[in-house]
Amino acid sequence: MKTLIKNVYAVMPDGSVPKTNILIDQDRIVGIGPVSDDFHPDKIIDGTDHLAIPGFVNAHTHTSMTLLRSYADDMALMDWLNQMVWPAEAKMTAEDIYWGAMLAMLEMVRTGTTTFADMYGPWMEKVAEAAIDAGLRGVLSRGIIGAAPDGEKKIEENVTLFQEFHGAADGRITVMFGPHAPYTCPPDFLKKVAKTAQSLNAEIHIHMHETKTEIQDSLQQYGKRPFEWVAETGLFDGKGTLAAHCVHLNDADIAIMKKYGIRAAHNPGSNMKLASGVAPVPRLLQEGVCVALGTDGASSNNNLDMLEEVNLAAMLHKVHTYDPVAVPAFCALQMGTEYGGKAVGVKDIGRLEQGYKADITLFDLNSAAWCPRNNLVSLLVYSANSSSVDTVLCNGKVLMENHVLKTLDEERILFEAQRCANHLTK
Amino acid sequence: MKTLIKNVYAVMPDGSVPKTNILIDQDRIVGIGPVSDDFHPDKIIDGTDHLAIPGFVNAHTHTSMTLLRSYADDMALMDWLNQMVWPAEAKMTAEDIYWGAMLAMLEMVRTGTTTFADMYGPWMEKVAEAAIDAGLRGVLSRGIIGAAPDGEKKIEENVTLFQEFHGAADGRITVMFGPHAPYTCPPDFLKKVAKTAQSLNAEIHIHMHETKTEIQDSLQQYGKRPFEWVAETGLFDGKGTLAAHCVHLNDADIAIMKKYGIRAAHNPGSNMKLASGVAPVPRLLQEGVCVALGTDGASSNNNLDMLEEVNLAAMLHKVHTYDPVAVPAFCALQMGTEYGGKAVGVKDIGRLEQGYKADITLFDLNSAAWCPRNNLVSLLVYSANSSSVDTVLCNGKVLMENHVLKTLDEERILFEAQRCANHLTK
Repeated sequence: MKTLIKNVYAVMPDGSVPKTNILIDQDRIVGIGPVSDDFHPDKIIDGTDHLAIPGFVNAHTHTSMTLLRSYADDMALMDWLNQMVWPAEAKMTAEDIYWGAMLAMLEMVRTGTTTFADMYGPWMEKVAEAAIDAGLRGVLSRGIIGAAPDGEKKIEENVTLFQEFHGAADGRITVMFGPHAPYTCPPDFLKKVAKTAQSLNAEIHIHMHETKTEIQDSLQQYGKRPFEWVAETGLFDGKGTLAAHCVHLNDADIAIMKKYGIRAAHNPGSNMKLASGVAPVPRLLQEGVCVALGTDGASSNNNLDMLEEVNLAAMLHKVHTYDPVAVPAFCALQMGTEYGGKAVGVKDIGRLEQGYKADITLFDLNSAAWCPRNNLVSLLVYSANSSSVDTVLCNGKVLMENHVLKTLDEERILFEAQRCANHLTK
Repeated sequence: MKTLIKNVYAVMPDGSVPKTNILIDQDRIVGIGPVSDDFHPDKIIDGTDHLAIPGFVNAHTHTSMTLLRSYADDMALMDWLNQMVWPAEAKMTAEDIYWGAMLAMLEMVRTGTTTFADMYGPWMEKVAEAAIDAGLRGVLSRGIIGAAPDGEKKIEENVTLFQEFHGAADGRITVMFGPHAPYTCPPDFLKKVAKTAQSLNAEIHIHMHETKTEIQDSLQQYGKRPFEWVAETGLFDGKGTLAAHCVHLNDADIAIMKKYGIRAAHNPGSNMKLASGVAPVPRLLQEGVCVALGTDGASSNNNLDMLEEVNLAAMLHKVHTYDPVAVPAFCALQMGTEYGGKAVGVKDIGRLEQGYKADITLFDLNSAAWCPRNNLVSLLVYSANSSSVDTVLCNGKVLMENHVLKTLDEERILFEAQRCANHLTK
């Protein structure tokens, strides 16, 4: 199966935006440029008046939590968790996990995300199923709370998830281990997780340094900041680590991130809404740390719209550092695409380049937000919203074309998600 | 002409969201609730699965500047002005002003804004024309730079604008005086503006305390902060003042704002992008200052999407103050609607209430971002984007219905705006 996207403005890895053609064979980009005589496409997508970017990579989310979208907002963090989120989560069945994830898949396809890194559970196999059904690329981990009595069981569930799904669906599904956070996993427990993950050569997805409180608590409990003592457990010694948030960092923390090649998933929307703080993103980028973007769960964002995160990444650090050139538009876009691919450990996504996977999002330029066409990358990051996304390919397969979904039944998903939410929240 | 919007979720002035009916006679809301037997609508809009809010009020913008959208981004402020914005503006003709404004009208209708406060020029009569053509409500002022040799001429142009357009188009157009800022208008000049505006009983629209630099410069030049010496010119003694930005404020500045009943137009997007700083919005609201929202011009935002500003107002102050309940969702929505009406000096807009103008925006709830329907105000502010806006009424007239524009020719506007931009920027 060969696909040709013709006459499209394509955002290249160097930030240039030529009008060109994208040649796809099966799951990969086989060329960008003139169409060679021996390329005979089975399908042609007219890219006229469209902008092509690599599909967004949502490097940190909790897809099934989409069922709790706008169930509890404008509350203090602990009230939000104790009174609202945790009681609702405790009621979740496998069916809820599936339809919550499907609602997220629907939203991600509609808004141009092709890869997501998820940490949740139980029943993460239902999230794998949803990603496979939707045609998206999922990097899944079982959220493991070691402080709970069933911590060991959760490690086992993560092992099962890895064995059953790592590399599944033509490699679209990969599995990491998901120790939730240093404040929910004591050192001895993290050692077990590290050992288990490393025995499978699996990567780690963990929340790190999200709030000031968790740093203070760690100093009180362990006399060390979380990055320091977690490094000592050996958790970072394996294949790789994706650390969500990384808001409150000092020099030593950043040195640890660099030493172990830890990739950060920055969540500006969630950090703003939960009042967690502003991550030192310009500094991390300067130091060569890989910084990707994530939405976090829809109950702290409240959507899975990666273009909003790209926009916030470009805007928030300017005002926070009083520097109008901090995190320029193209850099923010790279965080949401190329750096995302690196962060979630999928090497050949996130660039429109020969040899990379054909994960591609097309934006229709025919609206006021894209006029006049002074600078397409600036327009994308600062002016447009995700409703311009009209065509999405993942792994070479068309998931949406001209706003028409090819793998998902929108009406059914909205119905089932509402039905599931009703029993959780009422 | 009587219009009925039936079975709609309506955001009431107290924040409740009943499913109800909105009864409209000519330009006003004449009832919200059951449809009385003697109300015979000429037109019925089915509000099923829709949310109704008062049309957004964009309390500070420069509509014609939309032609410079994404022409110059990620630059230091003075480079941006000197090398890019001002040279392009110097080339603007009356036609550019009109089509730039029409592009803005198109974007505002599509995103649910029904009132805008504009400061620009020359040829503000072309902006009036555009607002009248579009069917929107415009609060116009001629931007007056007193430091320029033609300062007096600009005051005269503002007088002419007032005489020709104040109260025009069934009251949809009102006119304020627009002394640009304390750093572009010396004290004696502001005294002249004050005297002229007060002789016409006209209000003032001015930029105040946007950047740290202008405060420092003022202290150096006058030994006083701008709010203090501008108050001494008598500028605030007239009918009312709309002060854009108000980012850097001390106790004395806030006392002056309260003394003169000065209304603030907060521009979170622009303040973030230009790295101006974070306005003390929670404090201002606590002190009873009227705080509205504006997009600023599209070259520093880069769009005129008020739902984004509402979202940013709710998000930015949480992270800035480390308080997750600072500026809750409904408060941010009030800033973008009811407080906007007060701020721009139009008394009977901004609330869905009997006797208020029928300026109404409807959102289609049939999409993932609105699912599940746990809390419609939260969903609006934290999850949805403006592409859900499908129907807009201003002054009782339908400007868009089910995404179909009734007053504007979208294709023509996009064509003409691009043509005008080409000659400004190439």
